[in-house]
Amino acid sequence: MRVAVDIVIFTIQSGSLRVLLVRRKIAPFEGKFALPGGFVHEDEGLEDAALRELEEETGVGDVYLEQLYSFGTPSRDPRGRVISVSYFALISPDRTLQAGSDAAEAQWQEMQKLPPLAFDHGAILEYALERLRNKLEYTTVGFQLLPEKFTLPDLQGVYEAILDKKLDKRNFRRKIAQLKILKPLKEFQQTGRRPAQLFRFVAGKFEKLKDKGILFPF
Amino acid sequence: MRVAVDIVIFTIQSGSLRVLLVRRKIAPFEGKFALPGGFVHEDEGLEDAALRELEEETGVGDVYLEQLYSFGTPSRDPRGRVISVSYFALISPDRTLQAGSDAAEAQWQEMQKLPPLAFDHGAILEYALERLRNKLEYTTVGFQLLPEKFTLPDLQGVYEAILDKKLDKRNFRRKIAQLKILKPLKEFQQTGRRPAQLFRFVAGKFEKLKDKGILFPF
Repeated sequence: MRVAVDIVIFTIQSGSLRVLLVRRKIAPFEGKFALPGGFVHEDEGLEDAALRELEEETGVGDVYLEQLYSFGTPSRDPRGRVISVSYFALISPDRTLQAGSDAAEAQWQEMQKLPPLAFDHGAILEYALERLRNKLEYTTVGFQLLPEKFTLPDLQGVYEAILDKKLDKRNFRRKIAQLKILKPLKEFQQTGRRPAQLFRFVAGKFEKLKDKGILFPF
Repeated sequence: MRVAVDIVIFTIQSGSLRVLLVRRKIAPFEGKFALPGGFVHEDEGLEDAALRELEEETGVGDVYLEQLYSFGTPSRDPRGRVISVSYFALISPDRTLQAGSDAAEAQWQEMQKLPPLAFDHGAILEYALERLRNKLEYTTVGFQLLPEKFTLPDLQGVYEAILDKKLDKRNFRRKIAQLKILKPLKEFQQTGRRPAQLFRFVAGKFEKLKDKGILFPF
């Protein structure tokens, strides 16, 4: 029995949720897109293996990986029995250029326009998306996909991209205001039309919200 | 590399949170208590392996297992590299007698008085307890540890056992009443003092609560 790691890295680019994929150079599934990943070495921890494979295949390093789920259906790999321990992470758009710098075949692909994936990577990705959507409800995970300073349309765009639906602007801003987790800055972003105010996420306030029993109910 | 499954089964007996352990009959850690579990067969799914080992070692069948986490520190098993995929489940006290009927060495042990465990099973158990406490906050997991009909002191006892702290009775009842998830029955339980009213959990209401952004903030 062999053990592999597979890594789901999400980001948001141009308003859409994207995942980092690599094109396989060898059989099985040669030429198909797959999640970055590979076999765990005999003397290597699972998370260490995931970080190594991610760096080798995509050039992305220094990410906080969360273990997602282990997939072990006997038929999932045509080479024989392979258990896959999957990990996931979010990276903010200002870091997405790092990916692909060393591995020309690593690409950010839109979740809405995915090619068929190798192995059961489609199912792993679906599971990761479900986890991300759940986390959006009771954590501040959405802010990890934003740069340090962002506008309210940027923030709404993150929620809309992850949930894959349009949200009512007034309703969204009212709920966000209630949470009191944004610090307005005296800086503005020049856009095509009028300048948009920049905000910063106020860390530390979230735990207090949780004590009061407040979720992010979008 | 070998792959094993280990299973954490919690219940509540006599007001305390307990876990199902088995005494090892062979080396390594012969004579020590361990979580039920064992190696995954070559042609067997991970969850199937967990259900099989649980039944073989403890006599407990027909449980809903949730995958917890995969543990893979290279040194975790003295026999060589073994990855453990862990599962957990809760069973209500009216089903706990089932355990141990076929395997005399399976025992419910109090979480507050645990013996030293084999391998890294102490760490796996700690992780399971943390998951259980988190789930108590945003799911109705606590009700899985109750019989179908229960009293308010029974319910408070479940929360207290899992959180390992006393809760204020008036405060607890006020919060539970707000959630509107209990149906009062016209039945009473005879206790030493005055009879205690029985309640039933009203399924289906929880999803609506979640939409309103209400947690179980105890």
